[in-house]
Order: sequence, then C-alpha cells, then structure tokens
Amino acid sequence: MADKYILLIEDNPDDEALTLRALKKNNIQNNVEVCRDGVDALDFLFRRGAHEQRDIASFPHLILLDLKLPKLDGLEVLRAIRNHQSTRLLPVVILTTSNEDKDVVGSYESGANSYIRKPVDFEQFMELVRQLGRYWLVMNESPVGR
Amino acid sequence: MADKYILLIEDNPDDEALTLRALKKNNIQNNVEVCRDGVDALDFLFRRGAHEQRDIASFPHLILLDLKLPKLDGLEVLRAIRNHQSTRLLPVVILTTSNEDKDVVGSYESGANSYIRKPVDFEQFMELVRQLGRYWLVMNESPVGR
Repeated sequence: MADKYILLIEDNPDDEALTLRALKKNNIQNNVEVCRDGVDALDFLFRRGAHEQRDIASFPHLILLDLKLPKLDGLEVLRAIRNHQSTRLLPVVILTTSNEDKDVVGSYESGANSYIRKPVDFEQFMELVRQLGRYWLVMNESPVGR
Repeated sequence: MADKYILLIEDNPDDEALTLRALKKNNIQNNVEVCRDGVDALDFLFRRGAHEQRDIASFPHLILLDLKLPKLDGLEVLRAIRNHQSTRLLPVVILTTSNEDKDVVGSYESGANSYIRKPVDFEQFMELVRQLGRYWLVMNESPVGR
C-alpha cells in the first residue's frame, strides 16, 4: 500500500490545501503529488521537463483532475492520458466545482472514470475526500503495476 | 433520486440475493433490475426481445457487471455497451470474484469505470455494497439524463 500515491492536478491553492488536509485528517497516508497546471501534469506523468529525473517510477493509483487549469485544460490533459499507451488505463476522477452538462458529458466522452462535484460545505468536502480515497485506493482494483 | 436505478448483471443466485440484501440493509432504496445472462442484459439496455415493452425508459445510473456470465460474457457485454451511442457513457463497475491481471486489465481496456473484487466475508461484502451504492448513486455525477 505504501507505494500507492495520488496525483492531484489542481491550480487553486485553497482547494489544494483543503484536499491535502482532508486526506491527512482521514488518515489517508498515501503520498500525494501535486501539479498546478495541465502541462506540468503531463510532464510529470510522462517524466519530461522538470520531472525528467523524478524518483517515482510508478504511476498514480488515482488521478484527481480539475477541469479549469492553466496552460492546458482538464479535458485536454485527460485526452492526452487516454491517448498514451503507458497511461491510458489510469483511473481519473474529475473533481471540479462545475456540474454543467457539457462538462459532465465531455468528461465521460474523454474517458473519465468518474465525475465528482466539489461541495461548498467544508464538512461535506472532508467526507467526500475520505470516501474518494477509500473507494479508489482501497476498494478499487487498479490496473497500475499489473 | 427515485428514478435512479441499478442494473445488476449476475448469474449466481446466491450473489444476487446477497447484493439485493446488502442494498436493502444499507437503505439504498433505488430500484434494482437484475439480468442473469449477457444476452438478457443487452436486450434490457437496448429494449429488445423480452424487454421490448419495458416501462423504464431511462438508463441505469450504475451497472454492476459480473465477468463470468452465460451466453455472452461480461467483457463482451461491456464492449457492446461502449459501442452503442445510447449506452456508451453509462457507469459500469465490474463486480467479480476474480482478481487475475488479465481480467482487471481487460476490463479497463474494454471501458470499465471501476473494478471491484467481491469479498468472501459477508460483513465485508455488506460494507462494500454500501460504499458502492453511495459512491455511484449519490456522489458521482452521472451522464444519465443530461
């Protein structure tokens, strides 16, 4: 279990801090890598640019992906993940404030595993992150490492 | 919420009874439709054969799909769902006793949203069904009805 980690792709510092706090508070001990724009996220996954030398050889067991991102938006990141042989099966959960039909449908069309709307309420967000972590890191059988 | 329902595709009567019991015990009040082989499942989804006249016009918010099924196996059912315009975005969770690499990888390759291994322990199975129902029927934003 120690080698399972989450890749959080999120540009909003408040949402990043809140997510990390929720994971910690819920005793989700997995490491979390954070990328703050779409280009950096793909560089991380494909070990390019600033991440060329990164130690972590494996892929994340869960990618939490915001839709509104600088440089390259969430759907473009998702499509790049699905189009690359090494990353095409990784579990990607969209975590965003939008629940517009075009975003939800577009996410599934682009290959999202799941689409979760961020609750505004702090306690609800805590509980949601707990359930997300438990579902994808404990219950779900991941394709990673097989 | 009342119109959200689960499609359970499961040929084992014991597993079917256990799943229905777990949903009921966990106060998951959504209706559950059960199909006991792969052909019947596709007939249900596409309103063919015995299901031509069915009342339910909408699609399930969650499909729980076993892999080992009579007539047409789970992966074939999954591929048919993904290949049809009206069903291609439906959330499909594989729920099976197998955790063989070929089954897990094959499921994601065929478009499964998630892959859950059935626990042998009764209490664990109850808890798992509770979390499955909560995740996909309450937390997840579904493409159905958009």
